[in-house]
Amino acid sequence: MPNPIAPELKVSKWFNADKNITLADLHGKVVVIEAFQMLCPGCVSHGLPMAQKIHQTFGQDQVAVIGLHTVFEHHAAMTPVSLEAFLYEYRLSFPVGVDQAGEGNMPMTMQAYRMQGTPSLILIDKQGHLRANHFGQVSELLIGAEIATLTGEKPVDEKTEDGKSIVDSCDENGCPIT
Amino acid sequence: MPNPIAPELKVSKWFNADKNITLADLHGKVVVIEAFQMLCPGCVSHGLPMAQKIHQTFGQDQVAVIGLHTVFEHHAAMTPVSLEAFLYEYRLSFPVGVDQAGEGNMPMTMQAYRMQGTPSLILIDKQGHLRANHFGQVSELLIGAEIATLTGEKPVDEKTEDGKSIVDSCDENGCPIT
Amino acid sequence: MPNPIAPELKVSKWFNADKNITLADLHGKVVVIEAFQMLCPGCVSHGLPMAQKIHQTFGQDQVAVIGLHTVFEHHAAMTPVSLEAFLYEYRLSFPVGVDQAGEGNMPMTMQAYRMQGTPSLILIDKQGHLRANHFGQVSELLIGAEIATLTGEKPVDEKTEDGKSIVDSCDENGCPIT
Amino acid sequence: MPNPIAPELKVSKWFNADKNITLADLHGKVVVIEAFQMLCPGCVSHGLPMAQKIHQTFGQDQVAVIGLHTVFEHHAAMTPVSLEAFLYEYRLSFPVGVDQAGEGNMPMTMQAYRMQGTPSLILIDKQGHLRANHFGQVSELLIGAEIATLTGEKPVDEKTEDGKSIVDSCDENGCPIT
Repeated sequence: MPNPIAPELKVSKWFNADKNITLADLHGKVVVIEAFQMLCPGCVSHGLPMAQKIHQTFGQDQVAVIGLHTVFEHHAAMTPVSLEAFLYEYRLSFPVGVDQAGEGNMPMTMQAYRMQGTPSLILIDKQGHLRANHFGQVSELLIGAEIATLTGEKPVDEKTEDGKSIVDSCDENGCPIT
Repeated sequence: MPNPIAPELKVSKWFNADKNITLADLHGKVVVIEAFQMLCPGCVSHGLPMAQKIHQTFGQDQVAVIGLHTVFEHHAAMTPVSLEAFLYEYRLSFPVGVDQAGEGNMPMTMQAYRMQGTPSLILIDKQGHLRANHFGQVSELLIGAEIATLTGEKPVDEKTEDGKSIVDSCDENGCPIT
Repeated sequence: MPNPIAPELKVSKWFNADKNITLADLHGKVVVIEAFQMLCPGCVSHGLPMAQKIHQTFGQDQVAVIGLHTVFEHHAAMTPVSLEAFLYEYRLSFPVGVDQAGEGNMPMTMQAYRMQGTPSLILIDKQGHLRANHFGQVSELLIGAEIATLTGEKPVDEKTEDGKSIVDSCDENGCPIT
Repeated sequence: MPNPIAPELKVSKWFNADKNITLADLHGKVVVIEAFQMLCPGCVSHGLPMAQKIHQTFGQDQVAVIGLHTVFEHHAAMTPVSLEAFLYEYRLSFPVGVDQAGEGNMPMTMQAYRMQGTPSLILIDKQGHLRANHFGQVSELLIGAEIATLTGEKPVDEKTEDGKSIVDSCDENGCPIT
């Protein structure tokens, strides 16, 4: 069973970035998404510090760390104005997007990835497949190993002999529009 | 040189309290004021956890813990709406007042106590005198000792033989109206 | 019910001390005994670091910190030679006595205090009464408060009006030889 | 420049192992050597806990964790009798060898690897080449990544087309006897 294509990010506003970022832009890199809420204690004490360490440990030409502010409660308390001060005070330097509001309480990217809550750490391989979706506190040793395994993989579409990319093919989640 | 009278709190809104709280009401108890900003990393990692431990360790008939939200930067990011969600998520159960806005960036109580920043931990004795004003990270062992020393003191005005309270007397800060 | 007299230390060898130390010598000071085994993980991670902090926080004219190596298992692994290197490597600077071997596995002072295991933190007041006997991890806030309470107490025998010390009197543990 | 062959272990006694262990036996696995002294504070607080986590995180058919007791000071304080109790009390379950005494203070394997002190964490690839030699505290994220990179490598001698192993070839450290 092949790994599903990771759903594209739906972001209403970016911080620490001078333009819109899409997963399509990051094709060829391993992508680490740290989904958090600024008032979630576990995000502040371990999720975000780990994301910052990943950002500093791995080469940014190989691994892209993206923060995603996935607010699903206390919406009025965690506005972009508050988030901007939070990112400044906690010295978080990787790009952070505000997950776009959906119909219910849960924002759109969070829904698309079926996250269980915050913090969630998501790993996407160089071809854009979803490879891990961790909820809660995770071992640094394990995450270090998972990232290195993905960075060590050869991009599949460079290897297909007939010149066709297999990234766009259908999988059990459906057929992506390309 | 006697200890100065602690300036009265200037609070625009209370959380975890069903009515306005004044230092005058707390006469006879040791008062611990934890001054913080919700987006100050040191407040979140050690100042507020210590205040919560003090609240749980000492009898509330002897020691009153008061949080004071002394916002002096990023005012739009730390509104009462955001603070309310913060207190809920971090499970802080002692009363917290919003320090009243002053003329500059620094709020009024923060100015009156000449605090150096956040977190600040202030100790007030049973007669309402200012006894300690700590800025930054402080030793639990030391704070435990300071609080116990103050709770062990007999209220001075119960001891004056001639029946006059000495609490109202003038000190180097001026003469209090009583 | 009065507090019992703390049993005298039975020590076969001292480190960080140039002569034998007895509780009788420490009369007038609050005494903190940290009972430990050098290969006990909880002693190394929190018991001994707290003892060292107490030693550094409180004035040594008021509070005496004593380590007591109470080996009740793996005796051949925790000899005085090993203990000496341990104290050096962990930079423990307060006096440490080796609790004297008794008839069973448990050494004599440990037995006399009916300790539950290691680490144990024992508090003795200025008159030599046993005031606290904590087993396991204890709150720094609480220990700071307990020590300050004891240092704030007036020595009872300075207060007895008839000039007789009450320290030597019998209590429920028996009558001390004086 | 090829990586040097890792020097063979010189061990006088093993714990947590029912027979002698050599690097030759571990050919085909990634080997992690945690060199420590039982009375070295940094070994106890971070080196050994990390080794235990590596032992539990990675499959033992892929990654072999070996402790090495490299005593270079206080020899009389850290005998095998003391080490055995230490391993029991700290619940370390991977094999631990006592590095064989050499001519000076430093034991033989420690000398052969030119370690800088304890803790040292050494990584050896599936062909027995020395790949990393870390001294002091190291990042779990980084070590996780390094181990995963080595486990992901194909053993070189399985890939040589002419059937000759290249493991036995000379390198800057000399020519191994095979």
